[in-house]
Amino acid sequence: MNLDPAKGRLLGIGLGPGDPELLTIKAMLLLQAAPVVAYFAKAGRRGHARTIANRWMPTMCEEMPLFYPVTTETHFSDPAYVAQMRDFYAGATQDIAAHLQAGRDVALLCEGDPLFYGSFMHLYIRLRAQFDVVIVPGVTGMSGCWTAAGAPMTWGDDVLTVLPGTLPSADFALRLAGSDAFVVMKIGRNFAKVRAAIVAAGLLERAIYVERASMAGEIVMALKDKADTIAPYFSLILIPGHGRRP
Amino acid sequence: MNLDPAKGRLLGIGLGPGDPELLTIKAMLLLQAAPVVAYFAKAGRRGHARTIANRWMPTMCEEMPLFYPVTTETHFSDPAYVAQMRDFYAGATQDIAAHLQAGRDVALLCEGDPLFYGSFMHLYIRLRAQFDVVIVPGVTGMSGCWTAAGAPMTWGDDVLTVLPGTLPSADFALRLAGSDAFVVMKIGRNFAKVRAAIVAAGLLERAIYVERASMAGEIVMALKDKADTIAPYFSLILIPGHGRRP
Repeated sequence: MNLDPAKGRLLGIGLGPGDPELLTIKAMLLLQAAPVVAYFAKAGRRGHARTIANRWMPTMCEEMPLFYPVTTETHFSDPAYVAQMRDFYAGATQDIAAHLQAGRDVALLCEGDPLFYGSFMHLYIRLRAQFDVVIVPGVTGMSGCWTAAGAPMTWGDDVLTVLPGTLPSADFALRLAGSDAFVVMKIGRNFAKVRAAIVAAGLLERAIYVERASMAGEIVMALKDKADTIAPYFSLILIPGHGRRP
Repeated sequence: MNLDPAKGRLLGIGLGPGDPELLTIKAMLLLQAAPVVAYFAKAGRRGHARTIANRWMPTMCEEMPLFYPVTTETHFSDPAYVAQMRDFYAGATQDIAAHLQAGRDVALLCEGDPLFYGSFMHLYIRLRAQFDVVIVPGVTGMSGCWTAAGAPMTWGDDVLTVLPGTLPSADFALRLAGSDAFVVMKIGRNFAKVRAAIVAAGLLERAIYVERASMAGEIVMALKDKADTIAPYFSLILIPGHGRRP
């Protein structure tokens, strides 16, 4: 698809789980040639995406940090939060569109894979009707975690379920009964609830806790050995499958 | 971990979904320096893994094709199949171990991500006690497919379930009732059954069929528009989630 060769393209650059060498070759090449590089970050911070991309940034480019108005201070069901986020995405869309309209490609940095729980998607759905988009898939954060753990995740006919830790407890228990392998994302303040659901489902012995996979300060441990309930944003729980093994 | 510096290392190289530029930088660098490159293939064929890796092969290396004794001719529950596969993996393990014992690293090529439904895992679990292993995660085949479709897969609190098409029909229907987003892998000869289960679950309107993502001959279409029931190995069905969208 080429909507208008005079316009720039939105480039969704999957950065992978954190190690700069886990960018794909395609992501590196597109990033290095981009005149404008945009990325999400907490207000006043550089942000993880920009940090991961640092080694491969173009020597000359305009940097466009997109600072979240709120992150975890407000609950996502609060209408004020929804309105604030909608305004934020609308503003970011306008800023990016101005570059695209002027013929400049904009690389938008995405931790992990752009289309898998990515903030990228909120801008993508607002821009794709007017502009060409190139998306470069990335190694997901969860792949980074099971690799750090050296844990084969799914074998043969295993069913894998990916659960956000933000689900209500009852939902959580239900899902844990119906699959072979699990990844629990977005743990953070939900850690105690998630751990309790895993214990109740009889899955504690198989559960692995991983923090900051492929980055400095990487931690891999059996969930049952984790004494505290503190889990940062970059943490996951893995329950690998059993599958067929000839 | 460094078990014995005189021994070679097993390198599990994730190749991604098919486009050679979707290897990670780390995968490319490790592959290019490997004295021995092993890969699975159908008897007498070059195989997809070796084809994807072609651009990045070392100029000098020993190639070690590992030819599957059987692929889809025999059913996986047949004891003869299980015995044949066990012998095959044992033989491949011995051949690789001979190189590692002699101090040569062996790169084992893996389509997609090595620890996600990968044949790599069968050799990994047989070799990891005796030898150092480095695993490089890759972009999964499913990421390649949702990128080809330009389909945001999971938003906010969406639950994602990955289902092998080989599951019995009843299991299939049950799983399709309990999640927000779905990936159906290993379609092949199961296409008609999978399609029927998706129709019965009322999910046909949202389903996308993808074939050979990121490779020559890529096909993306609404599942409801697919007139035949022929689906090759490199095909998937995606049902993207809805999630929160401020």
